[in-house]
Amino acid sequence: MKLDNQLKILIVGLGLMGGSYAQGLSRRGFHVKAIDTNPDSISFAEENGYIEKGFCEIDENAVGEADIIVFALYPHVFVKWIEDNQHLFKPGAVLTDVTGVKECVVYKIQEMLRPDVEFIAAHPMAGREVYGVKNADESIFRDANYIIVPTDRNTVNAIEVCKAIGQTLEFNRISSLPPRAHDEMIGFVSQLTHCIAICLMTCSKSEHLVDYTGDSFRDLTRIARINEDMWSELFELNKTALLAQMDKFRAEFNEFYRILESDDIEAMKEKMRQSTARRALFDKKKEDE
Amino acid sequence: MKLDNQLKILIVGLGLMGGSYAQGLSRRGFHVKAIDTNPDSISFAEENGYIEKGFCEIDENAVGEADIIVFALYPHVFVKWIEDNQHLFKPGAVLTDVTGVKECVVYKIQEMLRPDVEFIAAHPMAGREVYGVKNADESIFRDANYIIVPTDRNTVNAIEVCKAIGQTLEFNRISSLPPRAHDEMIGFVSQLTHCIAICLMTCSKSEHLVDYTGDSFRDLTRIARINEDMWSELFELNKTALLAQMDKFRAEFNEFYRILESDDIEAMKEKMRQSTARRALFDKKKEDE
Repeated sequence: MKLDNQLKILIVGLGLMGGSYAQGLSRRGFHVKAIDTNPDSISFAEENGYIEKGFCEIDENAVGEADIIVFALYPHVFVKWIEDNQHLFKPGAVLTDVTGVKECVVYKIQEMLRPDVEFIAAHPMAGREVYGVKNADESIFRDANYIIVPTDRNTVNAIEVCKAIGQTLEFNRISSLPPRAHDEMIGFVSQLTHCIAICLMTCSKSEHLVDYTGDSFRDLTRIARINEDMWSELFELNKTALLAQMDKFRAEFNEFYRILESDDIEAMKEKMRQSTARRALFDKKKEDE
Repeated sequence: MKLDNQLKILIVGLGLMGGSYAQGLSRRGFHVKAIDTNPDSISFAEENGYIEKGFCEIDENAVGEADIIVFALYPHVFVKWIEDNQHLFKPGAVLTDVTGVKECVVYKIQEMLRPDVEFIAAHPMAGREVYGVKNADESIFRDANYIIVPTDRNTVNAIEVCKAIGQTLEFNRISSLPPRAHDEMIGFVSQLTHCIAICLMTCSKSEHLVDYTGDSFRDLTRIARINEDMWSELFELNKTALLAQMDKFRAEFNEFYRILESDDIEAMKEKMRQSTARRALFDKKKEDE
């Protein structure tokens, strides 16, 4: 299968991410339909040309004709949806997703899936602090990473289709990671940072501090506005990897505490030099792009 | 004393902050001189019109004629400088500073200071990841907080002069806090966040993660590029307050860890709701401005 305008694409779940996929794909001339339980989301997407047609219930024709199905659902709903409806899939269809954790869903789905359809996992590392299809904005992909998460069961064909979706939506960087490595990475760069931001907001009655917060505090807590249903589920599903990253961070934080407590100024400076050098590398990478 | 263009202002220490003060005050027609041990900093500031004249050594005339002296030195150098040179001050002079910690310097200076001059502490909460007078940029004040840190010894007159400097440099918000409250606040909103950013960079061999970092990780580590000489000194000088804030944060982080480990999803959601509500308050405040 080659990704071209003739293919029929179905988006299941029209939230911020599903909506942004629909918007981006429709703008580029693809035939996009969608399923979402919320009639307002469907009519909004239809009225704004994000989709040709949408359905609030599972439409057998729409599912049965789709060459590509993108699942943009909460993880537990997602696995159940496939279990219940996989008899409707078109033979040869390629399924993909936008789920933020992988190990717990990818193998389960590939295990139970009909042999004549293929699931290839993807993680678009994009988001906003707001949600819902009304906030859909495909420009969030332009600066973002798109990670393909294949297993041994995936074919080159499906991986290429998945990659082509990322290219079509103009993600900044497209790469590939196995499920476990993906989840470890996400545990560190995304989930751990969200835990820290939350704890910074909850550890102190900070209302009276609003007047004094500078850029640094605002930077570290921007992501503390969080959709609790989605993120608690993502944290739970990636619990092992996230706890391991939290362990690493708190060991380092405790070490820094000990250094300060014992006035070991040379050790403190060394930590600062190391963090400065590593962070400078990030900025360099960014400038090189 | 009223702050007007006829007053002679001396800046001691022409780094990023002293340089930005000099730049901002000169642009508004004040007579500004400066002392800095580095001849390059002096000639740069002279050539760019940040100061009328500068000195690499302590110039008795420049010190003796100054109505206002702004100290922009590292804390330990600052206290020593006053001890060694206070016989040169003009009677009635007002001294102020830009130091990031207060309790450990303010009382010491006010205790030893000649009775005919007055020290009123100030903390401009502005900065950049770069330093030195060559990076001076008075526009960093426009978005920043300026905190006056008076004690019982300070007169209304000196507090007004200090406030007028903040107004002249067009700080976004000017407020007042006693030394201890200032240091506690700084321990939380600035120093704790820097500790966290440092530990995020040093807790993991993150070089290979550069490819995957999204906005959240970049936000939380922007301030991990840090001047180790200045910050290790500020941390040490505010050790008690900072350790107390670190204790609070790590207790909360450990609690979050426990919640995740025990799958207490309702408690996790409650933390997320709390952090979301508090952070929303910050954004609201910002929008109201």
